[in-house]
Amino acid sequence: MIAAVLGSGAWGTTFAQVLADAGCTVRLWGRDEALAARITTEHENDRYLPGIVLSAGITGTTDVRAAVDDVDLVVVAIPSQSARATLEPLRDLIPDKAVAVSLMKGVELSTDQRMSQVVGDALGLPPDRVAVVSGPNLAGEIAQRQPTATVVSSSDPQTAALVARACSSGYFRPYTNPDVVGVELCGAVKNVIALAVGMAQGRGFGFNTTATVITRGLAEITRLGLVLGADAETFPGLAGMGDLMATCASPSSRNHTLGKHIGQGMTLDEAIVATGGTAEGVKSCRSVLELARSVDVDMPITEAVVAVLHEGLPVGEMARGLLARPQKSEKA
Amino acid sequence: MIAAVLGSGAWGTTFAQVLADAGCTVRLWGRDEALAARITTEHENDRYLPGIVLSAGITGTTDVRAAVDDVDLVVVAIPSQSARATLEPLRDLIPDKAVAVSLMKGVELSTDQRMSQVVGDALGLPPDRVAVVSGPNLAGEIAQRQPTATVVSSSDPQTAALVARACSSGYFRPYTNPDVVGVELCGAVKNVIALAVGMAQGRGFGFNTTATVITRGLAEITRLGLVLGADAETFPGLAGMGDLMATCASPSSRNHTLGKHIGQGMTLDEAIVATGGTAEGVKSCRSVLELARSVDVDMPITEAVVAVLHEGLPVGEMARGLLARPQKSEKA
Repeated sequence: MIAAVLGSGAWGTTFAQVLADAGCTVRLWGRDEALAARITTEHENDRYLPGIVLSAGITGTTDVRAAVDDVDLVVVAIPSQSARATLEPLRDLIPDKAVAVSLMKGVELSTDQRMSQVVGDALGLPPDRVAVVSGPNLAGEIAQRQPTATVVSSSDPQTAALVARACSSGYFRPYTNPDVVGVELCGAVKNVIALAVGMAQGRGFGFNTTATVITRGLAEITRLGLVLGADAETFPGLAGMGDLMATCASPSSRNHTLGKHIGQGMTLDEAIVATGGTAEGVKSCRSVLELARSVDVDMPITEAVVAVLHEGLPVGEMARGLLARPQKSEKA
Repeated sequence: MIAAVLGSGAWGTTFAQVLADAGCTVRLWGRDEALAARITTEHENDRYLPGIVLSAGITGTTDVRAAVDDVDLVVVAIPSQSARATLEPLRDLIPDKAVAVSLMKGVELSTDQRMSQVVGDALGLPPDRVAVVSGPNLAGEIAQRQPTATVVSSSDPQTAALVARACSSGYFRPYTNPDVVGVELCGAVKNVIALAVGMAQGRGFGFNTTATVITRGLAEITRLGLVLGADAETFPGLAGMGDLMATCASPSSRNHTLGKHIGQGMTLDEAIVATGGTAEGVKSCRSVLELARSVDVDMPITEAVVAVLHEGLPVGEMARGLLARPQKSEKA
């Protein structure tokens, strides 16, 4: 199979390697001419994955039109907010047989579309030719070929099975799941929960508090997802709980790190500087809360994150507020 | 409310403190005369919770009959396999108004009963007067009054609500759940999954692998639970995923530690010595697998743990075997 991977950051490059290890011929596209050349000749992406020897089956390129010529798979791993502009010029170049795969998390802010919708829209592909890959997939560890599993989600089971076959290898195990809405919602909302977990850890709290915030965070994502038509079983799975757990454990997650700084007493502005930039969840927490309110879903942890980041609630009051809520059933 | 807590180990003592902080008068029973005296006069359990100042509302005692006199709650936190023998002499001393609470995990080996069944049986109480408490509840962190949540489970909603009220405080938040079978199954099988996570970490694998083993481990516990009549929603909750996550993160979990030693290449005998004793999951993994087979449920991670610990499978082959299984849907 021939695959074009658009985006030579850490995750795009790592997924290119997963595909190559699974037997695909891979063209890895990026804007940086020198980096593309080094990927082809030195088999290294020294900017995003220094020290990892890439498979010889990966060719770097800066020619996006040539990259998608006669491919079976178009994998998209570029920044969410610029995906549409990058993809639209390729609209008439995608072969009829090809399917597109989104590796992107989040929502396009200008349209509120999920990233698979943006990909389908921009490339002119119907939903049954678009898939999403999401799971506990920290790029650095997969690049070292550590064992992990993931979810390949598409409304069309054949598309999901094709993508799963293309990326299945001795260390990377894909499971299929038809619930695209649930899988993408998990990817978008997990950043808000990672901020909350970071805040708790920044306050010095340990494993119980972390596990509680993650578990109850997942409960509120699930409540929202069910109202939006997602499948309840997606949330405790690899794209939900699995990804959330890996994100909240990793010191390299920006949302988690920024949350920790807030928990230690920094203002939002100070935390953004200390983190080296803002984090996805800082922007998206308000949209998530608005969405939840519009469909009348209670999301107390998201609400607390918004209150701390944007409404001046002292972070020390956050736990108190969450714990003092009326007694209830776990399933309510 | 007056509560008797039977068992002055780390978890019994910590739960006594939770009850005292929530306003109960607490009698904490243990066999050690000197320890009971120190709990009463020095407000410290220097054997199991050194350095923690206990509430003055806790009295230590070695007189188990006096401990349960006129109580509202009998909380049992003694070693699972000796619970029946300790409780049976109290059979006619439990007040009619009182309910019993099991803090114990596992299964009574001689009868295959769940611990709430053992408690009810030994004390002569019907199931609607017995509850279970389980969640991400590492004792040391709760003793420091770090925020956490838990599940209070009973077949009778009023019993669950009574226990939840009795232990609800500014740092400890109980949620009720009527699914006693699911809650207790999670507590029993989590040790097997913690062994598998330890093995993976001992091999040097990171956050992705950990999250994958925990998530797929929960998927197999869920499959077993559904066949046994449990409720699917219990498993991603605090007693399932929450407890599993805290257990697998904590360096103080014996199952997790023993698994790590195995992952690093020790034999089972060497690992037991290095861990300072055997771990619950080493014994129970075979019973879990037998149970799963008897009801025709596939539990590949449990199977791999049994194969490594008891059938000579090299731990290096474990990941390969799990990842090479046929492609499948996440929900199968």
